[in-house]
Amino acid sequence: MPIPDNIKLLFIGDSITDCGRERRTPDSPWDIPTNLGNGYVDLLNGLIQNQHPESNVRILNRGIGGNTVRDLAQRWQRDVIHLQPDWLSIKIGINDVWRQFDSPRSPHVHVLPDEFESTYRELLELTRPKVKRLFLITPYYLHTDSLDPMRARMDEYRQHVITFASEYEATLVDSQIALDRLMKHLDPLEIAEDRVHPGTVGHMAIAQAFLSSL
Amino acid sequence: MPIPDNIKLLFIGDSITDCGRERRTPDSPWDIPTNLGNGYVDLLNGLIQNQHPESNVRILNRGIGGNTVRDLAQRWQRDVIHLQPDWLSIKIGINDVWRQFDSPRSPHVHVLPDEFESTYRELLELTRPKVKRLFLITPYYLHTDSLDPMRARMDEYRQHVITFASEYEATLVDSQIALDRLMKHLDPLEIAEDRVHPGTVGHMAIAQAFLSSL
Amino acid sequence: MPIPDNIKLLFIGDSITDCGRERRTPDSPWDIPTNLGNGYVDLLNGLIQNQHPESNVRILNRGIGGNTVRDLAQRWQRDVIHLQPDWLSIKIGINDVWRQFDSPRSPHVHVLPDEFESTYRELLELTRPKVKRLFLITPYYLHTDSLDPMRARMDEYRQHVITFASEYEATLVDSQIALDRLMKHLDPLEIAEDRVHPGTVGHMAIAQAFLSSL
Amino acid sequence: MPIPDNIKLLFIGDSITDCGRERRTPDSPWDIPTNLGNGYVDLLNGLIQNQHPESNVRILNRGIGGNTVRDLAQRWQRDVIHLQPDWLSIKIGINDVWRQFDSPRSPHVHVLPDEFESTYRELLELTRPKVKRLFLITPYYLHTDSLDPMRARMDEYRQHVITFASEYEATLVDSQIALDRLMKHLDPLEIAEDRVHPGTVGHMAIAQAFLSSL
Amino acid sequence: MPIPDNIKLLFIGDSITDCGRERRTPDSPWDIPTNLGNGYVDLLNGLIQNQHPESNVRILNRGIGGNTVRDLAQRWQRDVIHLQPDWLSIKIGINDVWRQFDSPRSPHVHVLPDEFESTYRELLELTRPKVKRLFLITPYYLHTDSLDPMRARMDEYRQHVITFASEYEATLVDSQIALDRLMKHLDPLEIAEDRVHPGTVGHMAIAQAFLSSL
Amino acid sequence: MPIPDNIKLLFIGDSITDCGRERRTPDSPWDIPTNLGNGYVDLLNGLIQNQHPESNVRILNRGIGGNTVRDLAQRWQRDVIHLQPDWLSIKIGINDVWRQFDSPRSPHVHVLPDEFESTYRELLELTRPKVKRLFLITPYYLHTDSLDPMRARMDEYRQHVITFASEYEATLVDSQIALDRLMKHLDPLEIAEDRVHPGTVGHMAIAQAFLSSL
Amino acid sequence: MPIPDNIKLLFIGDSITDCGRERRTPDSPWDIPTNLGNGYVDLLNGLIQNQHPESNVRILNRGIGGNTVRDLAQRWQRDVIHLQPDWLSIKIGINDVWRQFDSPRSPHVHVLPDEFESTYRELLELTRPKVKRLFLITPYYLHTDSLDPMRARMDEYRQHVITFASEYEATLVDSQIALDRLMKHLDPLEIAEDRVHPGTVGHMAIAQAFLSSL
Amino acid sequence: MPIPDNIKLLFIGDSITDCGRERRTPDSPWDIPTNLGNGYVDLLNGLIQNQHPESNVRILNRGIGGNTVRDLAQRWQRDVIHLQPDWLSIKIGINDVWRQFDSPRSPHVHVLPDEFESTYRELLELTRPKVKRLFLITPYYLHTDSLDPMRARMDEYRQHVITFASEYEATLVDSQIALDRLMKHLDPLEIAEDRVHPGTVGHMAIAQAFLSSL
Repeated sequence: MPIPDNIKLLFIGDSITDCGRERRTPDSPWDIPTNLGNGYVDLLNGLIQNQHPESNVRILNRGIGGNTVRDLAQRWQRDVIHLQPDWLSIKIGINDVWRQFDSPRSPHVHVLPDEFESTYRELLELTRPKVKRLFLITPYYLHTDSLDPMRARMDEYRQHVITFASEYEATLVDSQIALDRLMKHLDPLEIAEDRVHPGTVGHMAIAQAFLSSL
Repeated sequence: MPIPDNIKLLFIGDSITDCGRERRTPDSPWDIPTNLGNGYVDLLNGLIQNQHPESNVRILNRGIGGNTVRDLAQRWQRDVIHLQPDWLSIKIGINDVWRQFDSPRSPHVHVLPDEFESTYRELLELTRPKVKRLFLITPYYLHTDSLDPMRARMDEYRQHVITFASEYEATLVDSQIALDRLMKHLDPLEIAEDRVHPGTVGHMAIAQAFLSSL
Repeated sequence: MPIPDNIKLLFIGDSITDCGRERRTPDSPWDIPTNLGNGYVDLLNGLIQNQHPESNVRILNRGIGGNTVRDLAQRWQRDVIHLQPDWLSIKIGINDVWRQFDSPRSPHVHVLPDEFESTYRELLELTRPKVKRLFLITPYYLHTDSLDPMRARMDEYRQHVITFASEYEATLVDSQIALDRLMKHLDPLEIAEDRVHPGTVGHMAIAQAFLSSL
Repeated sequence: MPIPDNIKLLFIGDSITDCGRERRTPDSPWDIPTNLGNGYVDLLNGLIQNQHPESNVRILNRGIGGNTVRDLAQRWQRDVIHLQPDWLSIKIGINDVWRQFDSPRSPHVHVLPDEFESTYRELLELTRPKVKRLFLITPYYLHTDSLDPMRARMDEYRQHVITFASEYEATLVDSQIALDRLMKHLDPLEIAEDRVHPGTVGHMAIAQAFLSSL
Repeated sequence: MPIPDNIKLLFIGDSITDCGRERRTPDSPWDIPTNLGNGYVDLLNGLIQNQHPESNVRILNRGIGGNTVRDLAQRWQRDVIHLQPDWLSIKIGINDVWRQFDSPRSPHVHVLPDEFESTYRELLELTRPKVKRLFLITPYYLHTDSLDPMRARMDEYRQHVITFASEYEATLVDSQIALDRLMKHLDPLEIAEDRVHPGTVGHMAIAQAFLSSL
Repeated sequence: MPIPDNIKLLFIGDSITDCGRERRTPDSPWDIPTNLGNGYVDLLNGLIQNQHPESNVRILNRGIGGNTVRDLAQRWQRDVIHLQPDWLSIKIGINDVWRQFDSPRSPHVHVLPDEFESTYRELLELTRPKVKRLFLITPYYLHTDSLDPMRARMDEYRQHVITFASEYEATLVDSQIALDRLMKHLDPLEIAEDRVHPGTVGHMAIAQAFLSSL
Repeated sequence: MPIPDNIKLLFIGDSITDCGRERRTPDSPWDIPTNLGNGYVDLLNGLIQNQHPESNVRILNRGIGGNTVRDLAQRWQRDVIHLQPDWLSIKIGINDVWRQFDSPRSPHVHVLPDEFESTYRELLELTRPKVKRLFLITPYYLHTDSLDPMRARMDEYRQHVITFASEYEATLVDSQIALDRLMKHLDPLEIAEDRVHPGTVGHMAIAQAFLSSL
Repeated sequence: MPIPDNIKLLFIGDSITDCGRERRTPDSPWDIPTNLGNGYVDLLNGLIQNQHPESNVRILNRGIGGNTVRDLAQRWQRDVIHLQPDWLSIKIGINDVWRQFDSPRSPHVHVLPDEFESTYRELLELTRPKVKRLFLITPYYLHTDSLDPMRARMDEYRQHVITFASEYEATLVDSQIALDRLMKHLDPLEIAEDRVHPGTVGHMAIAQAFLSSL
């Protein structure tokens, strides 16, 4: 699908989006590609600039490692609304689930399903009218067994995102499906030794899934 | 085009290939993707594993920054022959030209056209029978003006590579053409501030050109 | 059970044993407890010195991170035979399995079941007559599902160790059982975020299992 | 003795308690075991989680190196009262004595017996009704000769703690006795080269003394 | 031409002027030559002190890397007016142009010709009456081809400076001419690998051009 | 007592002598005072140069931290004989004793009284005829109680040194006596927190004791 | 001369006094000798504690490198008056002179003779009644030729100090005389390579001069 | 005077020549100006390339800090003869003198006048026939008083160089005269705080003196 000219596409999310992006200033004076981190956002910029060099797409990265939907809500004004993107992509949920497993003694950092759903919804209600296109990237967990406790929990949250995409006329980018396809042939640990943070192969899967959704 | 199963694809070249790859040992015990540097080789691995996850392609990176064809010849046994790749990709020539411009007082480091041609040819004569497929990636220079002295000189060397591809039944990957196309819309300095070392956008152009040649 | 006086107890293994031990010299001049790393070996020394302060037990740590049984064989003379321990504890196998999962492209680093069994057996044949007591600590994988591919594979290797313990009249220390018990109440990721390297809670489980076996 | 479910056990004290604990935030978001430092608190957590994994005990470490009872009083609201522990353990006094010996020229940092007694008492008066169980760990000095000036002085302070334990129905954990027992067989300098900061063996003695008092 | 005694000569500009100067305080207590950076300002001080040691010329460096005329305007009070130089030298424009080429996606950092002209003019209007002599150093770009897009753009800005010199009775120091002369014999890349930041040879050309203008 | 002109006075010993001396080369080209470390040797040089500036005394420092008399014997040729001092000062024994206390499990590093006596004697037999004056500095331990186990052990070794001084017509410098005098008024821990390594006050006591012995 | 018990002796001055002293807090909790820097103040403490251990002298160091009498005046309340010393030693003037020579272009940092005299006098007027004893240490310059411009200038300032000592019944410590005596036998550059900052030999000369003045 | 085309001009000397030059390899592959250090050699290259850009002069820097004529002799084959310069410049002697003053206790590092003269002569005898032009730069000492001991000593050595220049038909570059002229107006300490290592002003004096001698 063709991309309109001069759109500003903003990615917000957690460490998978962040991936070491430049933070000196929001909209650093020279917002060239090395400011995008080394994950799917940077790969996507590479793919888009090569496939649509004439469209002058400008990509911004506002991922922050460790974020939950709770954190997104706290910085939403500064990192999304204020930047007035034409297109917006949201990828959140992994840490909302992960903390329930690696920090069970810290319930105050757990974003349980209801809070996840309601907080995410608030952000969408506020933002949807302000953007021309909205992309929702699902959280994922690199385990082939859908009965694995964390995989199952992640799928719960993923389902919320799937529902929101439909409800808010957003484009769904199901990273879990993209990565499941990869896992048919590659071991999860080869894709991401902690089953969450991939190398280029895993990030490319997400980037290409996004590209296909355009 | 389909990729045969279990092929070992080796990339040899200069800093554009190298791009910070892992060097601890040739064939580090765990040859996972972070060993490939952060340039077109890594992007290509990402693209291939996603498009052909079933083929079990193994990619090796033996680029070394600053190399000329003279340097390749010196390490050819260790870094190519000894590793017995099924498929081999060669990308060289940029430094052979660049030194003539940034170090005119050092003629002993200049690899002039005749030496470039003869040395490159020797390597191809030795190697072609040993590999099932051969890819030759041209050198490039990010300047839109074909009359620019360095651009013109680089094109001379590029022409040698084009000729070799035909003569040795190699697959030509013309990076200059791929990057020229990009430069119709993007300023050369936005692609590479020194007109030689690109960011992800430029590397993606090379990676996709390679992928298209398969 | 009482511990004889003045015994030298040597632990050899992989990173779980190593855990940051001191390496300046084998038998550093002042072989006091801070040379033992910060894992189960150090905890065990703490427990033993408190429960048997009169026995003058001397503990040596010769774990090396990343080791497989293949690596143990290569350094066996220097790190076991030469040191003439009275009691010897062997803990190996995790990496033999792990590499099959995180580095499937590198079969040359895979220690498959047969090689594991035969190499381990050689070491036991050579060593058993030389030590008064032998302890074999099983490998483990922190997953509750015995059908998980890596868990299942690890259990295969664990079974070899169980068999060897019986055959060579060694004391079996089944770390998997000890950690399984813990996992009934604690999430695997709370014990070890990578399901392999635990914090003090997991190491204490191994140390207490060893202590109980005395 | 059984431990009730879901108790929050807070340790406050000096460097023996602190021992390099995590300080980023009081109640760091993910309060997993590596936040406990590498002393008796961490060992105790290891022992408790293994012996009572079902009890969901949560341990907090609020030791600060160099502290005297004067310092505890200054931060008592923030580091004890505000955190509302179910069980509280106090270990203080070593620095109150030590400064009298290594800094005789600085009387303003000396917490003499009367001040120690009165300040400690104030804290107990304030806190005892707020906690379900209270543990008082005595200060200690690793010298076998009870006539040694610093040992004798330390015993004076220790006696205050012993008295408070009785008066405030606290559980006494006499670290001096635990370490004296160790010193029957191990040289004080082998336990702690400065006679105050032990390695794992000494910390284990304190941890096991605490465990036995439950 | 003779230099009057005791003049304070201030250089303001971008990175070519800055060149690593000392920044601890404006007018560091001991304003000796190592505070001048290692570019043309330092060379000029060396030349002047040797040719006019009796004149007690005091040179100040207020270059800041990356500056455009917009940045100069923002700090003009602090870094020029407040310091009350007798003689003032202004060198600006390179970044005003460069950003248009390496950051085309960031128009908000582009100082286009009209803004450059008007802002520069404002500064001159404000300052000219306050200084006894004014020097205007042109921006430059190290490319021999006047049709090169960036060279051509730079010449546009250079022309503004040439016009201002005449209009405000300033001494013109045309660095482009000085460097063009050098480029008749030396390759641009030998003078400055990025065609902007020279080594001593290029800086000496600027310094000697300035000296000749006295 | 007057000091002869142009004497070379060499100090050999352990960390009390070493105290951070310069090690680049034995007899560094410019053997000025900062090569002497920051202990009693440097203080003594300061005192001597001020009291006998006309004597051109040259002081060399060959202390090495951790040394026992066993270590001295191993390097005696290189660090004493080869340097042909006119006057020689030996200070050793502290570590010979200390290791018996902080590393009881490592008997192979213990230099027991007989070995200490015999090794020391060998060195004296070899060296005495080669030097014009010999100084023997006793080991010490900063404890006021002569019954303290380590103090008592140290006194044993000290007695050997006292005996040697008499037997080999050496000048005895009894550091223990000098420091005992200090300890009448200063707490041992104020002099040396580990009772062995003093600050300037303790080192000055040794330096002045040496000076008084001239 | 005997030193009264329990006196607090404060040294204030420039880098010769400072010499790397501890700065964490004014009157660090444990004000033991390593807080005194490694110059004449530390040496003096060493000498005094050995010669008068019974007097409980407490020495404070408030030197700051680079200071002139102007700087002393600015911090006089905080660093002298507020600390209420019994005895006070002032050593200043070197930088007041030195800047006139190494920074002639920076007259605003020059403390000329009149300002030196008047500022110093103000401080003495304010302070003399508040201290029981006052010591004035002269500035010095390590040049044997009294006609050397900087030496001569330094002597001017030194003369002011000599005059003040008499006028304010202070004890004069003439460091120049002490160092001149040393320079009869030692080259100035051997004492201080920059003729100002000595090693231990030079600092010892100052310390002993001070000690002799008691 | 015109400079012949394509000459190789080699500078050998001590730290004044060295001044931080690049050392990776003799004749680094890309021998561009940043390899020349930041002293008179680099300035001279800047001056020459600007005044004679057409001559293709290639400058090599083989200064080594701390060198005496003794050191030059040891490396003469490698650093001069082997490099076959057309023109050679020698600057040595400062350290030969300086060590006599800052290290009087180390006579073995003193290169006294006779040794200086004879060693220097040997080098000239060996080399003069091999070079087309020879430049001898005198040592200097930044003191205005010719009776200053070190100045006087330096002048002795300088006189040797003056004599050699005449005897071996070399071009004399008298740095002392050049710097004396500067010192009529600038304080020696402003030129070089240690009276030996200048900043750009002093180095420029040497560079211009050399340039004038061409």
